[in-house]
Amino acid sequence: MSSKIFIRYGQIVRELRLSKNISQETLADLCGLHRTYISDVELGKRNVSLENIEKIAKALGVSLTKLFERIEKNASI
Amino acid sequence: MSSKIFIRYGQIVRELRLSKNISQETLADLCGLHRTYISDVELGKRNVSLENIEKIAKALGVSLTKLFERIEKNASI
Repeated sequence: MSSKIFIRYGQIVRELRLSKNISQETLADLCGLHRTYISDVELGKRNVSLENIEKIAKALGVSLTKLFERIEKNASI
Repeated sequence: MSSKIFIRYGQIVRELRLSKNISQETLADLCGLHRTYISDVELGKRNVSLENIEKIAKALGVSLTKLFERIEKNASI
């Protein structure tokens, strides 16, 4: 069950990143994180912490509310 | 900056738990986590992972969207 949230979270991060037309490397730089970490996040391989969830949302220019709204809407399809 | 999100998150978890009139121990049992962990979370001392954020929200009967909406509204006061 819990792996599903990682997958959905990663998918939305990827969608938002692509909609901003930036690379994983640019997103990583904006967050102060490593590119391979962002790659793992997008693949649903990471149990991301609240601190990094906030950093990534800020770098993507989206509120946490909007981010989780997208994740939970996605989940119900 | 990042510690603020821990504090706000902990405050909202505490508010939601109290509104359900359950103890930290009961919430911990519902989540499959330890009572001292829940205590630390409520005090803003933990960088909670996405997996545990989801577990705690489910135990509190709140969506992640609603949870973060409350956190972000709280932040803007």
